[in-house]
Amino acid sequence: MRFELTHEFLDVLRLKVAEQDVSWIQEHVLELHYADIAEIIDKLNNDEAKFIYFLVEEDVQADILMELDEDIRDRFLSSLSSKEIADQLENLASDDAADILGELSDDKIQEVISHMEDDEAAEDIVDLLNYDEDTAGGLMQKEFFQAEVDWNVTRALVELRKQAEDVEKVYNIFVVSEGNQLLGVLSLKRLLFASANTKIANLYQSKNIISVKTSDSAEEVAKVMEKYDLVSVPVVDYQNKLVGRITLDDVVDYIKEEADKDFQLATGISDPVEPDASIWKISYLRLPWLIIGMMGGILGAKVISGFEDSITRIPALAFFIPLITAMGGNVGVQSSAIVVQSLARGDKDLGKIRPKLIREASVALLNGVLLASLIFGIAYIFENAQLGFVVSISLFTVIFFAAIFGTLIPLLLNKYKIDPALATGPFITTLNDVIGLFIYFSVGLLLYG
Amino acid sequence: MRFELTHEFLDVLRLKVAEQDVSWIQEHVLELHYADIAEIIDKLNNDEAKFIYFLVEEDVQADILMELDEDIRDRFLSSLSSKEIADQLENLASDDAADILGELSDDKIQEVISHMEDDEAAEDIVDLLNYDEDTAGGLMQKEFFQAEVDWNVTRALVELRKQAEDVEKVYNIFVVSEGNQLLGVLSLKRLLFASANTKIANLYQSKNIISVKTSDSAEEVAKVMEKYDLVSVPVVDYQNKLVGRITLDDVVDYIKEEADKDFQLATGISDPVEPDASIWKISYLRLPWLIIGMMGGILGAKVISGFEDSITRIPALAFFIPLITAMGGNVGVQSSAIVVQSLARGDKDLGKIRPKLIREASVALLNGVLLASLIFGIAYIFENAQLGFVVSISLFTVIFFAAIFGTLIPLLLNKYKIDPALATGPFITTLNDVIGLFIYFSVGLLLYG
Repeated sequence: MRFELTHEFLDVLRLKVAEQDVSWIQEHVLELHYADIAEIIDKLNNDEAKFIYFLVEEDVQADILMELDEDIRDRFLSSLSSKEIADQLENLASDDAADILGELSDDKIQEVISHMEDDEAAEDIVDLLNYDEDTAGGLMQKEFFQAEVDWNVTRALVELRKQAEDVEKVYNIFVVSEGNQLLGVLSLKRLLFASANTKIANLYQSKNIISVKTSDSAEEVAKVMEKYDLVSVPVVDYQNKLVGRITLDDVVDYIKEEADKDFQLATGISDPVEPDASIWKISYLRLPWLIIGMMGGILGAKVISGFEDSITRIPALAFFIPLITAMGGNVGVQSSAIVVQSLARGDKDLGKIRPKLIREASVALLNGVLLASLIFGIAYIFENAQLGFVVSISLFTVIFFAAIFGTLIPLLLNKYKIDPALATGPFITTLNDVIGLFIYFSVGLLLYG
Repeated sequence: MRFELTHEFLDVLRLKVAEQDVSWIQEHVLELHYADIAEIIDKLNNDEAKFIYFLVEEDVQADILMELDEDIRDRFLSSLSSKEIADQLENLASDDAADILGELSDDKIQEVISHMEDDEAAEDIVDLLNYDEDTAGGLMQKEFFQAEVDWNVTRALVELRKQAEDVEKVYNIFVVSEGNQLLGVLSLKRLLFASANTKIANLYQSKNIISVKTSDSAEEVAKVMEKYDLVSVPVVDYQNKLVGRITLDDVVDYIKEEADKDFQLATGISDPVEPDASIWKISYLRLPWLIIGMMGGILGAKVISGFEDSITRIPALAFFIPLITAMGGNVGVQSSAIVVQSLARGDKDLGKIRPKLIREASVALLNGVLLASLIFGIAYIFENAQLGFVVSISLFTVIFFAAIFGTLIPLLLNKYKIDPALATGPFITTLNDVIGLFIYFSVGLLLYG
């Protein structure tokens, strides 16, 4: 039932575009859902994309534009004139239009704005450009339903019908005072079944109304919408005047980006990078982690060099260096990842350090005993029981300490308001390498005498 | 404006609960948003929780119940009688009720169901229990607005008013044939402004209607809702009969869990674990990764033991083992993480292996040259130019190969339908350890002669 984009379809389509076969495109492309058309356009070159895009109805064009890959959209828009861009913006919701405009240079922005015919829309967009994109102001749109508290249902329906043109998705109606102060929310369902003379004042919900301020961070908005199960949230200014609304779909994108960011920190990429960023930029962003890793390696070399005599006497000690460092790293990352996740989920408060520490320590004891026995068994079979003893004792100790540090460090970082996800990356691996090596050689020295 | 839970508040509240000071609780707790009340109850012991919960109005109880931490909810419910649980279920949406019931034993389920007074609701819940929880059937609820295509607006309003009692959040109305086949969707906005005699047939949208089947996976549902920007999606059975709907908030939870899963694979935790799982279970789930890591370490030991002579002659070679393995691991994880993320974002198709490989290789060359020069410089200053030369040449080679493997392995795993996120974990670190050591000692042997 749903459309599936295939290579074969694309091949045929490219041919039809080359032949300018409008009726084929009409039937096989333009009839599709806008999200599918956007998926198709993402795979075409700019000329092909333009050909199809301008065959589409105007208000569907806007939907397609917002569904395109960011890079494809940028490429596409940069091939349009200021007038053409202005035409596209008029069909977009204000928040989307502002996002697109925000990508352009200041000169270009002015030029595009001057070509817009709908002055009110232009004003809304210019206003939105003032807000930082990571705030509620930057996420909100200017299109929403609002009703004054002293209207009756008939009056409200008349007024809302005027507003309806601009508002694409309606979840509820924001109720305001004459002075535009946010008073509450009225669900469309409630309005639908109300009799004509009822006052809005007697219909709307004014208790526990959740709103956000324009200056609230996007993170705060996402948290509020998740916590209070909102599909849309009103945005107010410092005087509690209603200025916009944010819908859940915009916030879902933000939530996904945040989850990606944790993943990137854990894997040592310091900043979310567009897949098409330049090689210089990618290298630059990854370098800090690698330098931390290298410093750790040099520190590790320093530790080992302190035990040069032991290595000269028993070179076999060197064999198990990678085992010790790898296990310390793995255990440390496992422990810290758990802590980072529970912090990200929001169990920030009411200090639970001790139970976490006890749990991680117990897991480490259990796994440590098991793995240490295993490695001793293997060494015993290969007839080097003494070395096996050294390795298994150190392995156990390293696992235990790695778990403790892996748990404590993200908790400490969090306490000092540093993103604890940092701790899951190369940072903790490096620390555990150094500590692990020290333990290993100390045990070695002790047991070999 | 919004409620913030503090230690101080909790301390006072506990006192007031102990004193059974209902009027204080009335004023300071029951007036709050249900999500805030749930947050408070999460922090109380079971008796305190029950005291507050049963002071709340019945339909708010349902909202609170669904907002509680899962563990707290389980603890809370297990202290209720079957009759009490049944009462709670009657106030819940069918999907939530089924989720809660699904946690109980078969006997308990029967007992609870037998206590439910609303037979229709009971039937809905029992029906939902039949679906796997990771499918559309498992996510859907039975409450939604539906209208028959040949009704007019007046008739629709009468019928919808009857349905309205059960449906909490309404985004749109599903339009069906007399035989309950899904025909299309009607927005509430459209209905609101339509005149009384208009036929639904002339109002509703029938083109490009997106629906999911009961058997579709939750992952598929999340993808569809994201792609087509839906706040709610109709669920149909094999005969295209409308059987339920899924709302975006349920899917947001799923999306977050999926993102968590990638993070967990990258950090070596094989399965999403509840924070309160038993120590045995946690140990067991982490063990596979640790054993892989240990096997890698043993393989590494094997590689180094092949170069025992070199170490005996030049013990300083052993110093830089951790540096080489750590850098191989870090670079490998960085490269694989990028690939895993772009795969997760869905650029699965249209084989882009070569450009990815070229980009990662270029970044590796750039960072490799830089870091190798740095380490050579450091070694030179500390007056061991020959060893510095060995280390820097090997470091460069290791970084280059780690990037190549880090890019290729997740792509290969993906090709063979294995979750590529596996590759960001201990797996790639281990592989790179072994390869890195081999390169390092080979270069050492070569250059020291």
